Amino acid sequence: MCEANAYMVKDGKEELLMESVDLIEPEDNNSSYRIMSIFGEQKIVKGRIKSMNLVAHKILFERFV
Amino acid sequence: MCEANAYMVKDGKEELLMESVDLIEPEDNNSSYRIMSIFGEQKIVKGRIKSMNLVAHKILFERFV
Repeated sequence: MCEANAYMVKDGKEELLMESVDLIEPEDNNSSYRIMSIFGEQKIVKGRIKSMNLVAHKILFERFV
Repeated sequence: MCEANAYMVKDGKEELLMESVDLIEPEDNNSSYRIMSIFGEQKIVKGRIKSMNLVAHKILFERFV
């Protein structure tokens, strides 16, 4: 399976938001994202995408400054 | 490998931008994205992320309206 783990980067540290993320969709004109795991868990993440590394299964979000 | 294919959605149709995308990073304050394949190919995509489906290996971009 090719899901990824989503993290929020805060003060240079990565805090896990959700494991096994499958779906990512922008909400509110890209000021937040809805993420959903392969288990059906959902979260709204306020912020923007900082980087995604699919081969490393890693999605990093950051807050707007 | 868990890379995905990137498409631009235009008039409801999906046009392939790049296969085997590994890295995605926003540029220019999220008005465009730099995408890089596992083969090192790079592209700047003007627009925003419409949706990502990692298990289906699919990343959809769309132009700003």
